[in-house]
This record gives sequence, structure tokens and C-alpha cells, in this order.
Amino acid sequence: MSKSIPFSARSWVHGSELTEFPIQNLPFGIFSEGYLGHCRVGVAIGEWIIDLSRLHALNYLSMLPFENDDFRSKSLNKMMMRGKKACSALRLRIADLLDSSQDAIVKDEFTSCLVKMSEAKMHLPVDIGDYTDFYSSEDHARNVGMMFRDPAKALLPNWKHLPVGYHGRASSIVISGTPIIRPCGQVNASDETQPSFAPTKQLDFELEMAFITFDGKPMGERISTAEADDYIFGMVLFNDWSARDIQRWEYVPLGPFLAKNFASTVSPWVVTLDALEPFRTIGPPQDPEVLPYLQYTGIKNIDINLQVAIHPENGNEVVVSNSNYKHMYWNMNQQLAHHTIGGCNMRCGDMLASGTISGPTEGSFGSMLEIAWKGTKPVDMGNGTTRNFIHDGDVVILRGYAEQEGIKVGFGVCSGKVLPAKD
Amino acid sequence: MSKSIPFSARSWVHGSELTEFPIQNLPFGIFSEGYLGHCRVGVAIGEWIIDLSRLHALNYLSMLPFENDDFRSKSLNKMMMRGKKACSALRLRIADLLDSSQDAIVKDEFTSCLVKMSEAKMHLPVDIGDYTDFYSSEDHARNVGMMFRDPAKALLPNWKHLPVGYHGRASSIVISGTPIIRPCGQVNASDETQPSFAPTKQLDFELEMAFITFDGKPMGERISTAEADDYIFGMVLFNDWSARDIQRWEYVPLGPFLAKNFASTVSPWVVTLDALEPFRTIGPPQDPEVLPYLQYTGIKNIDINLQVAIHPENGNEVVVSNSNYKHMYWNMNQQLAHHTIGGCNMRCGDMLASGTISGPTEGSFGSMLEIAWKGTKPVDMGNGTTRNFIHDGDVVILRGYAEQEGIKVGFGVCSGKVLPAKD
Repeated sequence: MSKSIPFSARSWVHGSELTEFPIQNLPFGIFSEGYLGHCRVGVAIGEWIIDLSRLHALNYLSMLPFENDDFRSKSLNKMMMRGKKACSALRLRIADLLDSSQDAIVKDEFTSCLVKMSEAKMHLPVDIGDYTDFYSSEDHARNVGMMFRDPAKALLPNWKHLPVGYHGRASSIVISGTPIIRPCGQVNASDETQPSFAPTKQLDFELEMAFITFDGKPMGERISTAEADDYIFGMVLFNDWSARDIQRWEYVPLGPFLAKNFASTVSPWVVTLDALEPFRTIGPPQDPEVLPYLQYTGIKNIDINLQVAIHPENGNEVVVSNSNYKHMYWNMNQQLAHHTIGGCNMRCGDMLASGTISGPTEGSFGSMLEIAWKGTKPVDMGNGTTRNFIHDGDVVILRGYAEQEGIKVGFGVCSGKVLPAKD
Repeated sequence: MSKSIPFSARSWVHGSELTEFPIQNLPFGIFSEGYLGHCRVGVAIGEWIIDLSRLHALNYLSMLPFENDDFRSKSLNKMMMRGKKACSALRLRIADLLDSSQDAIVKDEFTSCLVKMSEAKMHLPVDIGDYTDFYSSEDHARNVGMMFRDPAKALLPNWKHLPVGYHGRASSIVISGTPIIRPCGQVNASDETQPSFAPTKQLDFELEMAFITFDGKPMGERISTAEADDYIFGMVLFNDWSARDIQRWEYVPLGPFLAKNFASTVSPWVVTLDALEPFRTIGPPQDPEVLPYLQYTGIKNIDINLQVAIHPENGNEVVVSNSNYKHMYWNMNQQLAHHTIGGCNMRCGDMLASGTISGPTEGSFGSMLEIAWKGTKPVDMGNGTTRNFIHDGDVVILRGYAEQEGIKVGFGVCSGKVLPAKD
């Protein structure tokens, strides 16, 4: 059974085919209504959210292995614990109910399960167990290497042999719309002097995407590149906020710490891997050949248009990057195979981010560090100000969508406004 | 009200004053009885476990802000969510009930809540949100620096200005007794050649301790060194298993990843900070002076004797290290203040480990890398074999206790047996 919904399909939900959430998408998220409303699992269609607990209560999902509690939850984890097969079937069942050919009675009953997006509040979609950040865009790694190391040896020796990654902080991953307070920390421009304590002067975004896992195998077992798809639920946009000056002083030898753990922002809707299958595309050739456990068959990159915009407090939104997820050197299957090759266990709700996604050309870089090239190419904001890094009051907005035959499968918005540092 | 139980106190539980779990300790853990027994919160006294859900059901804890469900749980988190004040009062109430001066009726009823340790199974004590590993022993950092960098500049420039730390993997933290499968991974002795894939040849332990937090402040707020004690529930022994050859190839520039995330082992009993207060001791002088947010008042190190032994498959246990937690350059208050200074939020059940705890002399080093000094000083195992690193079949055992006036406040055992790598 194909898990894809044909591009020709249309929903009876008016206008949904013109939005980022057509019947071909059907992403999952957690929403609530009103001030004290309970959190529940929802699926996006057009400008509406389908309340799955109501749909389940109406017996429309009774042939599927879910209980109502799976949908009356603060996270998608309970639902995801039912497994990939069940979640794929759930999405296809919803697509069937939403199809324009559906009976009037069904449409009528179904309509009682729809909540207007504009009247709902979105929440963090998953209870994140562990969060890992990779570093899998060659252009990003090369740009950073050129800026801070020998330009002739911009990539480190290990970079093309393994998807470099590190563990990050799960507690401070927040939903789009959450304000980001400028962090303070130790900075030291040279290593010779005493460090000082100050708000970061180099607050940056990182344009990333993250995938969310189903429950994995027990500790000690591996997930192969061939099996990886079965353990991936879906993807979100991910802004890995970074304080470059704090990072510079702290990160040798054990990696970034306070420079990253003050906040990361994710988009609210988890677009399933099923929905993204039609947008698979061939990844960059990998040379030198990778070790057998990192080899894979099939087409594993995905063509997802990505955009970053900055909206300053006094001014209009300025697009500062147009990139694409297809540029990734290491794909998700390789990332998951690598992560588990030593026996590390994945759990339901783990989040694995791509690392900054830069394209090969100026205009497609995924961080201010690269866009303003270490402060040498300030970005004109059109309101009389320029940016090398992010200012207080700026809203940073990530957007992303895959598109084919006029149908957009989108991720919505991943945004955060920067507030001044605390005393 | 003092949270310490006087060294002169004695319990009516026979012989408990001779064990690591006298009335002065009363650590918390999660246990079950029988094959399918439910997990519950227990407190250790002598060779017994107090079943807190039974004690609560007998109304002995009714003046305290706990519900029975807090104790009928797979983790200590629910109980800890009641806060430090409540948990401290709970421990003192239990001490009161266990005191040798207690009424015969109370002793009799209380006895029905005791489960023999030898008949119980221990489980991971907390549902770990995020796990952080510090690098706070100067002797360890210096030893590693001397081996791998310029001996004259063994400490990196940032080391004495901030407690270097990095995020680790929570999913693979396991309870003492869990077998550890030797991990495979990429290794590359020189950076010039192609890497190969193999089981690690340099499997090591790291002698560490970890502290567990109560629920912290919201994201964006800081925990000061003065406030830190109020956010620390207690401590466990922690073996941060490491694969040195995998680490060498992967860790530049973003830190250790697969070299660490295949497993870490913790001891089952969480010894409360309250129980450790009488063993406070002055830490090493900090020079240069640290930034104001890292300054602290009071005596913040703790005198805890630590030991590592290796038990080979064919032979007897050999003690390879005697160290002490008092050697830490950075104390827990500083670690917590640093971790939150940029706004990173702590949650109930977070685990923050010390990094390898090495003392200043040979015989007190906390890893095989240092003990065998990069393979130049193999350890004689007394059975005709030597060790530079850990072999298959070896059991690595960490032990720890604080001692005063003949009373030992101990941590029990943190052990793991190494099994051969999988194909």
C-alpha cells in the first residue's frame, strides 16, 4: 500500500489545496483551545485543525489500534508508541475521510471535529527524550572552516567519513512563537586575557531541520540505513539559536555548551516522512566512499525549499536566505545508522537535527555568521540599519515547503523574537 | 531545622549502623519484588528497603505533602516534584520512625514495610530529562593534557575560568548490573589514512559522581551558587564508559559522541545532599579568581572516598584506583550556576556528572587511560594478565562512601560487566 496521497487528490475542506496543509500533507501537532483548554493531538488541513480525540470518539478511527487517550495528550508520544504502521494507516484514513468524494453525512460529522487554526494555540509536539545535532551540510562546514581554519583544509579529516554530531539540550527546545532572551555568558576574544561576562554580541540563528523518531531498538542494537525510514516519524523546522562569542571561548575541547543550550525553536507541525516521500531527490555524490554501515540504496535526500527572514522591530521583513534541505551531504538514514552503530538506543520522541543547512551559493547560507561572512558583509535591513548578527527586537522566521504539481507540502512557520538580556 | 541526623543516632533495624546505609544515610531508590513486581519508591536501611507506598498507606506519612501515587512509580520524579522541603521532611520523618527510641507498636507496624534487599531488584532511580557531563577535576584535565598536548600547557586557556561541560546521552544511562556491550565504531590512529570499522580496542571507565536536580526555574532564569543547594536532590556513582579510539577520531570539533553514548552506569541509591552535608570540606583554592557569578560562600566540596576495582573473568578483584570527590576543582554549586547562567532551564530528574575524578597522585587516577598512562604502565591483574584498557568479561566496580565517627554514608555499588562486541 502506498503511503502517498496522489497530487491529484482534493479535499472537501474549502481552499485547503491552496495552503501549505493540503490533503497531501496532514501533519500532526499538539493544540489547545482557549485559556485553560486541554492539549490534544491535531492534524492540519487548510486553515483548520482536526481534533483526533473527537474523531476517534465518533468511531471514525475504530478500525485502527489507537485509544482515545493517545489523542488526549500533551505530546504525540503516546500515539507514536503505536508504531509507524499504525500512524501511517491513521494518516491515510484521515485522507480518505477528507477526500472530496466523501459522503455528505461523513463530511457533516467530520466538520464537528474541526477547530479553526486561528483560534487554537500550538504546543511543543513531542516530549523530547534526547536531542542530537548533526553538522551535515558540506557548504556550512566548509564555510566555517574557511573562516576559522586553513581555507585550503576547510573540512576536517573526519568530516567526509562520518556524519559529525553532538548531543544537545532537550529542556530548552521551545515551540515557535516563544520569546528568546539574549543569553549572557563568558566571552574572551583572545585566549591571552581574562574573560569577561556580558550579553552575547554575536547572537545567531541556524537554519536546520530535525527529524523525530519512533521507539527504537534496545540498547546494543543497530538501526541500518535500510531500516532507518521505519524509525522516522516526521520532520520539523529547527532554529538552533547560537551565541558565537560564547561558543568560541568555551567549545574546545568538548564542544558547544552554553552557546547553544539557552534555546532552540521548532515549528509546531510534524510533517510525516510519508508525506515527504514524493519529494525524494538524489543527494550529493559521496567521495571518498563511505564505510559499509553508512552505505545506502535508494534516493534518500528530500527537496524542501527553506527560507529565513528577519523582521526588525521598526521595519519590514527581509529574506536573508533561500536554501534547500536537498543540499545535505549526509542523509537521515546515514545519521540514524551512525548514531546507533555503537549501540546507542533511540527512544520515541528523540529529535535529531541536521545542522545548519547552507547551499553552495551566497544567498543560500543558513546562518548570519556565513551570510555576513564574519561581519565583513553586513546585511542591509532596508530601514537604515544593518545586521552582522541578530538584534534585540528582531523576529527570526524560518519557513519551508516541498512543492510539486502545484501542491505545497509545508511546515508552517518557525519563529522567535529576541528580547534583551536580563541584568 | 537541621537536616542532618546526628552521628550518635542509632536505628532499631539490627546491624544497620555497620552498613553503608545507617540511619544517617536513608537514600532513595526504585525497587521491585519478584518477576513481575511493580516498581516503587524505597529507602535503604541496613540490608532492608523501606516500601514508602506501604508506609504511606499505614498513615505514617500523612502529615507530609505526598500522595500514595508519588511512591507507586517507576521513578523518583513524582516524589521529587513535591520539592526539596517536602523531600527533606520525608527523610527526617523516616529517621524518626527508625530511631531506636521508637515505640514497639511503631516498630512492629513499620517492619511490615521492610523488604529484604537481597530479594528486590533495583531500577534506574530517575526518569532523566537531560544529562550533562562536566570536566571538573584538575588532575584529570591536566593528565589528559600532558598525554595529548603540550605538557607545559596541559590545561587549556578556558579551564580555570569556567567549568567545562558538554551534553551527553540520557537514553543509554543504565542501572548498576546492566551488561555493557563493547561498542564498534570508526577508528583512525592517524588522520592521514582511511578510517576502519572495528570494536573499540580502548574501552575505558571513568570514575565520576553525578547529582540529580529538583525542578528548576523557567527558561531564561538563573540559579545562583547560593541557591544551588536548594535544587540538588542527591548524588549517585557514575561510570561514564568511554571508547578512547573512537573518541580520538570523532571528537574534533564538536566533542565526544559515539565514544560516550553507548552506555553510562549509575548506582541505584540516590544519597541525598542532606545526608552528605556533614561531610562538607574545603575545595582546592581557585586561582585566578573566578567571575562573580561563579564565586560562592561556604564550604562546598564533599569528602567522599571513591574506589574502582576490576574483576576479571578468571581471577580476583583488583583495586585500580582510590580517589576522592573532594579533589574537584569546580563544585556542584558552580556547575549549576554556570549551566543556567545563559538561561538554560533545569528540570526535575536532570543528571549532572562531575567528569572523571582523579586525585593528585598515582593510584588515585579515575580512568585506565591515566592509570596505565596511555599504555605505558600496564596494570598487573594478578592472574597472569595485564590491563591497559578493559577486556571482555571484566566487571568494573565503582564504590563510594563518606565516613565520620565510625558511621559510613555509602553509595553501594555501581558495576557493569563488559560483553564482547556484536558482529
